[in-house]
Order: sequence, then structure tokens, then C-alpha cells
Amino acid sequence: MKIVVDIGACDNPEEVVRGCALSLQEDSSTNLIISGDENFINKVLSEYNVDRNRLEIIDAKEVISNEDVPTVAIRRKTESSLVKAIDALKSDDVMGMVSAGSTGAVLSGGIFRLGRIKGIHRPALAPILPTLIDGKEVCLIDCGANVDCRPEYLVEFAMMGVSYMKTVHGVQNPRVGLVCNGVEDKKGNELSKEVFARLKALPINFVGNMEAREALSGDYDVLVCDGFVGNVLLKTVEGTAKMVMKLLKTSIMESASAKFGALFMKKAFDKIKNKMDYQKKGGAPLLGVEKIIVKSHGASNASAIMASINQVKKMYEGNLIQNIKDGIATIAAVEENNDANS
Amino acid sequence: MKIVVDIGACDNPEEVVRGCALSLQEDSSTNLIISGDENFINKVLSEYNVDRNRLEIIDAKEVISNEDVPTVAIRRKTESSLVKAIDALKSDDVMGMVSAGSTGAVLSGGIFRLGRIKGIHRPALAPILPTLIDGKEVCLIDCGANVDCRPEYLVEFAMMGVSYMKTVHGVQNPRVGLVCNGVEDKKGNELSKEVFARLKALPINFVGNMEAREALSGDYDVLVCDGFVGNVLLKTVEGTAKMVMKLLKTSIMESASAKFGALFMKKAFDKIKNKMDYQKKGGAPLLGVEKIIVKSHGASNASAIMASINQVKKMYEGNLIQNIKDGIATIAAVEENNDANS
Repeated sequence: MKIVVDIGACDNPEEVVRGCALSLQEDSSTNLIISGDENFINKVLSEYNVDRNRLEIIDAKEVISNEDVPTVAIRRKTESSLVKAIDALKSDDVMGMVSAGSTGAVLSGGIFRLGRIKGIHRPALAPILPTLIDGKEVCLIDCGANVDCRPEYLVEFAMMGVSYMKTVHGVQNPRVGLVCNGVEDKKGNELSKEVFARLKALPINFVGNMEAREALSGDYDVLVCDGFVGNVLLKTVEGTAKMVMKLLKTSIMESASAKFGALFMKKAFDKIKNKMDYQKKGGAPLLGVEKIIVKSHGASNASAIMASINQVKKMYEGNLIQNIKDGIATIAAVEENNDANS
Repeated sequence: MKIVVDIGACDNPEEVVRGCALSLQEDSSTNLIISGDENFINKVLSEYNVDRNRLEIIDAKEVISNEDVPTVAIRRKTESSLVKAIDALKSDDVMGMVSAGSTGAVLSGGIFRLGRIKGIHRPALAPILPTLIDGKEVCLIDCGANVDCRPEYLVEFAMMGVSYMKTVHGVQNPRVGLVCNGVEDKKGNELSKEVFARLKALPINFVGNMEAREALSGDYDVLVCDGFVGNVLLKTVEGTAKMVMKLLKTSIMESASAKFGALFMKKAFDKIKNKMDYQKKGGAPLLGVEKIIVKSHGASNASAIMASINQVKKMYEGNLIQNIKDGIATIAAVEENNDANS
């Protein structure tokens, strides 16, 4: 089984290739296909001793950039590394794809060129964020694939998030929170109120409405919201963490004694920086498409790419796609039953 | 001119009274009315030497709690400190109100018992947040008063935020950002796209879509969004700042050298804590109602109450209500003109 890696229009394409080379070295069961400019790939690979029997290259000189209109580019740029990677992904012996390219293009490619899982209205992007509790992470679904949502989309997001956290993170009975403007059952906007009622009816561990203040508390395994809200939540986490660290740095530089004190705290600072750099620990899975896709950050370094490749393996070994299909069947069964009883 | 202070159902009612006493001592031009249990108020005031000629007490033994349904409580609990404070606020010689009580009740009271400014569809709650730049703050409007919004509401929020930042913070030409899932003009959900087009047409400094990552960068003076999104943004800021500080504390406690280093950094830590404790610097104005209302945090201490009282004065002296009325007239004129031309 192979994993296809699209170099795409990312910030550091060398790092993507390096990540592939290191993955091949690290695990002898890894087989990769790299999609991108063959000359460039070979040049970077020449620095590494890799087993070429476990590596294929798809030569694709075209790239889909962040300036392209994703839906159009996916149809027209058929020679691009992403389109060629997705076409490779359709093959039975390819288990999944990693791309560090344009998020919009990966979404469009996954949804329109690869295809949705039957019964899923809208695939969603589900980054995995750190929490206050060491070793515990939380899945935020959706974080931007769907900015206008109907209630059924969020119900499916919840079920996909549960499948992911069970399969990949080994959480037995994931705690699902619905992002809301208060914890009370009656809080929420029109969308979230309808979703609340429908999640209550499902055989999942739905703990109710939650406030964004607790997003990273470790109390939740899955946070459900529409992609507009999720995007705001995700970016606010990033912006605030960066701001606090920057303020701290400025305050330290202003005082000689603080500067002296900081010398003894490098490890403590590094630990936080490392924790908040969640993008280095893997990518955001695009859940709800027919095969496994992990979107790595555009600024990924080699270790982030390695982490994303490992993530694909875990998703595949855990049989995630089938688990999502089972989850969708559960939703259909519960809602059909409710309709029959009402 | 007087300011009425509602003790309400807050965490530390003594602190609210103390804040009033200190305000009276600090500024001899301050005249206050305190609404709440008279015996309790007098007991707390007995600790202070205050000029009773500048202080009235409205005896109100009933409180509206966070458990009450706001719209119902505002109609039925006519003996409550909040309802009595709002009734006092209607008088011509009262310039504004401060309340540390239930947010929902303050909103309902302001909107239904006091009344909206003509032309405003929905009043909004607009907390003032710190930014990376010292002395620069940003107004987030709405942060929870309106969870389901139509485009015209957000257009009015923008105009009210501009009036506030001009009047109270002396910002000449406030930079307005529309909270979005990307900075590109075409990004957004159905609501924000419609708002984008309408803000473009107004004679305000609308700088376009912004990402929540930059909310506290200091690049914006007013952030516009619906109350559901604003609430998520605000609470994510709070939660993330708290998380980073907690992680830092944990890391420090784990290491003897970091503990030693931290001794030299108390000031630097305090500076950040102080910056992020924005609620101690005043309350969130409820904009769009007929008179000035500032909602203080439920856990306000005396200095937060003093800050809120000062905020009311600034809003009054800056003629905020009239400025908002002028802003609404501008929107009406621009949109009428556009309709005529289309």
C-alpha cells in the first residue's frame, strides 16, 4: 500500500520532499508516490539515501496556487501535481494522500474529483488541536470547508469527528461539544439549536453546548460548528497564543532582571511553543471523502510532513472510511426511526 | 447629571458599592444613584466618607438572576434593582447606567424597557479588547446580543462601533474589519458577503475582510460580526490566553531553574495578566439603545466599577447617542441613494 504526497504550491517544497525521504528511511513498510516536478524532486532526494523501490514519482510541472479559483483549477489544471495526485489516490493500492498545497484546491479536489462518501452532504476539514491536558487532543470540525451550513451537515460533522477520535486517537467514547454562546441547552442560534436536538437523539456521547472558552480545556474530544465559526475559533486560538508570547517577549526585553530570569526558562517557553505548534504534529484530515486526505500546513517542514504521512497510516489502519460509513448509517437509522415515531 | 448603578445579581455586590464610593471620592462632579438593597448599600457605604448630597439610593430588594428568563423577568420583576435602575435612567437628569448584573437581563431591559434608537434594528454588545499595541484597543461588535443576524444589523453594528471609537477612544478614522474566514474580498458566508458589499458603500474606513488571527494585532479599531461569532471570538481569546499562562505556570513548576528564573519575571507576567484582564478597565457598552448603558463583568471589583462609571461619563461627554443617530442617518441616506440609482 502506498501514500501519495502532493508537493503543491506550498512554502517549502524541499521540506515536503525531505519529509518523504525521512519517512521512507524511518519505516521500511512505507511506500510513497510523490507528485510534482520530477527534476526538482530528484534533486532534493539526491541528498538522501532512499530505497527507490518504495518510491514513485509522478512528474507534474503545473501547480495550483492560492490565487487560482479552486473549483475551476481542479477542472482545468489537469497537469497539476494535485490533480495527478488525486487521480493516483483513486487507485486501489493507494491508501491516502498528503498535500501541503492550497486548502481550497485540496477541498475541491477531494470533493469533486475524488468524491464524497455516500450519505455525507458536505465533507469537512478537522484540525486536531492541543489541550491543557498533556497527550489529549481535540478535533475541531468544521474549520472552513463549509461556511454556510444546514443542520444535517453539523450532525454528520459530529459523527465523523467521533469516528476520527476513536480510530486515530483511541478515544473510547469521545465527548462531543456543540460550539455555542453559552452552555445552557436553550442557548444558540437557529442552526445550533436545531443541531442540538438532533445530536441529542444520536447514540454518541453528546455532552451539550459548550463555550469557546473551554475549547482547549481537555474536557472535549470533538468540537462541532459550522466552518465559518470554526475558522474564527481556530484563528483566534493562533492569534491569541502568538499575542501572549509576543507580549511576554516584549516585557522580557524591557527589563534586565526579566531578561536574566528568562535565561532559566528556555525549556518552559519551548514547551509551550511546541504545544501550540499543533501543525507540526500532522495535518487536518478532510473527512467525508471516499479516501483518506490529510491537508498539511502550507509552511510545513519535513517533520510535519512525516507526521502527516503517519497520520494517513493510522487513519487507514483504523479503517476510518468504513467507520465513517457506519456512522452515517447510524444517523440515517436513528432519524428514520424518529420520523416513523413522530 | 447623575449615573445610576445597578448592583444586580453580580458576584461581589460589596465591590460594586465600593466602586461607587470611590468614584464619589475621586471626582467631586460625580453624582450617583445606586439601585439595590438599601440596608446593604448603607452598610458598605459606612466604611467610606462619601458626600451623601451626591448620592441617592433606590431601595430595591428583588434581583434578576442569571437563572431568570430575561425577557420575562424584565416585565414581571418590577421591584428588581435593574428594572428600577432602568426606570431611573429614563429621567432627563440621568446620563447613563452601569450594571454588573445578568447580561441577558441588561440587554432585555435596555432594549424593551428603555428602547432602541430609532432606525437601529438590533442593539449590540461591544466589549473593548486590548491589542498588541500599547494604548490601542479594539471594539468587537456584536459579542452576543444577537445570535441570528440580517445584513442590516451588521451594517449598523459597524457604524455604532465607529461612533464609539471616535467618541470615547478619540480614534479619528476608525479602521473597520469584517470578521471573515479569509482576507480576500470574495471570502465569507452568505451573511458576511452581503455585509461586505454594504459596508463598501458607506463613508467609513472599511478595510475589508479580516481573519480572527489579527483580531488583537492593533490593525483594526472595530471588528464587526454577528453575536454568535463574536461570542466565540471573545471567549476563545479568554480561553487561549488563560491556557498559555497556565501552561507556562505548569512548565515553571516542573523545573527548579525555571522557578528561579520566574522570580525575576514577576513584573513581565503581571503586565500580560493586566493587559488581558480587559474587563477590569471598564465594561461592554450596549450600543443602539436610547441612553448610555455599560455592562460590567459579573465578577467586577471596585476599580472595574469605577472604570465603567468613567466610561459612561466619556460616552456622555462625547455625545455618543447623537453620534450614533447621525451614523444611522448616514446609512439611510447612502442606501436610499443607492436604491434610487439601481
